[in-house]
Amino acid sequence: MRASVFHAKGDVRVENVPDPVIDEATDAIVRVTHACICGSDLWFYRGESPWQPGWRTGHELMGIVEDVGTAVTTLVKGDRVFAPFAFSDGSCEFCLAGNQTSCLHGGFWGGADNDGGQGEAVRAPFADATLVKIPDAAANDETLLARILPLTDVMGTGHHAAIAAGVRAGSTVAVVGDGAVGLCAVLAAKRLGAERIILFGRHEPRIAIARAFGATDVVSERGDEAIAKALEMTNGGPECVLECVGNSDSMNMATSFARPGGTVGYVGVPVGSLKGLNLRRMFGENIALRGGVAPVRAYAEELLADVLSGKLDPSPVFDLTVDLADVPKGYAAMDDRTSIKVLVRP
Amino acid sequence: MRASVFHAKGDVRVENVPDPVIDEATDAIVRVTHACICGSDLWFYRGESPWQPGWRTGHELMGIVEDVGTAVTTLVKGDRVFAPFAFSDGSCEFCLAGNQTSCLHGGFWGGADNDGGQGEAVRAPFADATLVKIPDAAANDETLLARILPLTDVMGTGHHAAIAAGVRAGSTVAVVGDGAVGLCAVLAAKRLGAERIILFGRHEPRIAIARAFGATDVVSERGDEAIAKALEMTNGGPECVLECVGNSDSMNMATSFARPGGTVGYVGVPVGSLKGLNLRRMFGENIALRGGVAPVRAYAEELLADVLSGKLDPSPVFDLTVDLADVPKGYAAMDDRTSIKVLVRP
Repeated sequence: MRASVFHAKGDVRVENVPDPVIDEATDAIVRVTHACICGSDLWFYRGESPWQPGWRTGHELMGIVEDVGTAVTTLVKGDRVFAPFAFSDGSCEFCLAGNQTSCLHGGFWGGADNDGGQGEAVRAPFADATLVKIPDAAANDETLLARILPLTDVMGTGHHAAIAAGVRAGSTVAVVGDGAVGLCAVLAAKRLGAERIILFGRHEPRIAIARAFGATDVVSERGDEAIAKALEMTNGGPECVLECVGNSDSMNMATSFARPGGTVGYVGVPVGSLKGLNLRRMFGENIALRGGVAPVRAYAEELLADVLSGKLDPSPVFDLTVDLADVPKGYAAMDDRTSIKVLVRP
Repeated sequence: MRASVFHAKGDVRVENVPDPVIDEATDAIVRVTHACICGSDLWFYRGESPWQPGWRTGHELMGIVEDVGTAVTTLVKGDRVFAPFAFSDGSCEFCLAGNQTSCLHGGFWGGADNDGGQGEAVRAPFADATLVKIPDAAANDETLLARILPLTDVMGTGHHAAIAAGVRAGSTVAVVGDGAVGLCAVLAAKRLGAERIILFGRHEPRIAIARAFGATDVVSERGDEAIAKALEMTNGGPECVLECVGNSDSMNMATSFARPGGTVGYVGVPVGSLKGLNLRRMFGENIALRGGVAPVRAYAEELLADVLSGKLDPSPVFDLTVDLADVPKGYAAMDDRTSIKVLVRP
């Protein structure tokens, strides 16, 4: 089959790779119909994370079940499913606690050992636990499918930031970052009842989406100016801060303007963010840091129900669609920020 | 009056200072009968925090009300009271939320602007809110007073670590640090119903107190060996870690062996601890960091009730008593770790 493979900084190619086969009785084979390129894919694309030539790419996928192992009980050939960016056994202590990204037997799509989402098909481990079935009535509705696809990562991740930060009805929330995760974090905060949602971002098309998603204020200053503005606008800081970038500046902002006693929910993959952590202030003002890699599997059913009922639509984060052959062009578009998020149709 | 004054690294002196007077109608004057030397006092004593010559020392105090301002309504001359290490107005947003250390008008004893606990008397701001009255029946019981005195800081701080880390009935808890706060954290975890309490410490007299306070296990290894041991003993890490030191090693241990999905409750004043924070693992395993400077005022009534009923006795942390003139000797004893915690009788 054809799939995207990382070769070097700035060099991702679509090439022939072995077809996936059922290895374990709990596996399924899924033909990928929809996938994405993620902001976090840019870390290896830019050479900022230790990624090896030959590793497969893509961790957000939706598709049709083509085959199932003998131990798979809840899925049959032809089912439309989506997969969170981590697969998980569904039965270990951490899965049962809703922390599937710490699954004792789980892992992540792509890399050295697993098929990636940016390809024609994947072997899906622990298919019953990993894959989320989309009801047949919705299974061929392209509009709905585009709304569901972000549940594989960015919508679940934005939701995780909001949950980690303790967003609830009436909260004042700051969202640091205007990438797809930041935008989904705005949507998640709105969905949870936040009264005021301040987006920290500077790019007009993204700001427009944030406003449509529920942002009430936008701050386009950077660094110390952004911190001063946030403190002033909220008379001492928002109690919930959603950090959706992962670098030193974003973490410094988040931890420097959170309200005393408040919480920073962070989901930006840490690339330098430790350096920015304002631990002295966090300690002095009892500001908590919660979050991490999002167990989006834990949120799949809840968010899917809202998409299916028409209450939730994160699909505006997609502003470019490519076929599999054009995945390299998709990376380039996200790298130069001409695209917020790329939808891939293998 | 006589009071302890910081002069330079390793140089604390008891000398004449102005007598305190009522400045605000909400003040009280308290004659100090009991005070302490705190592990956190060692940071300036060792020259590791920016403390200026002439600053007054001591932030843990108990005494007798000698005078009250015209607006004080709940205290009268002769009342026995204790004071948390921070004073607070009791009425601002943060005080009402139980985060009195972030009080909009509050502050800390000692330093440039306030009387310190290591002296004959203090001006107590916001006396109604700051001071905690000890019932008359207990007011002259020296045994009880020694049990109450740690509520000014170390017992409340250990409790804060346990609360921040989410300790509850059945929890598995690790306590990093065998100073007075670490020992009180053990006691707090036990009081909250923890099933297993692992102390990380190496000093026999402290370990003996920890065991009496409820520690079920003791790990005396350091660094990577301690991390490996903790992970092995608990089959993947304790879900609650109470970080009671504040340096790079202690924070690295705490964040490197906490169980996935667990919480590090930190109360050790950060002196290098940012460097040790294992943010990569915290992110990957959704380990939260909560805590900070303890709002011990919030816990005063609850803990006092348990001391008075005989359920709580943190007084074994005191292993040396000095009079005011010997405060410098008390600092030296804590600095060379021949004393866990010094009780001062001005």
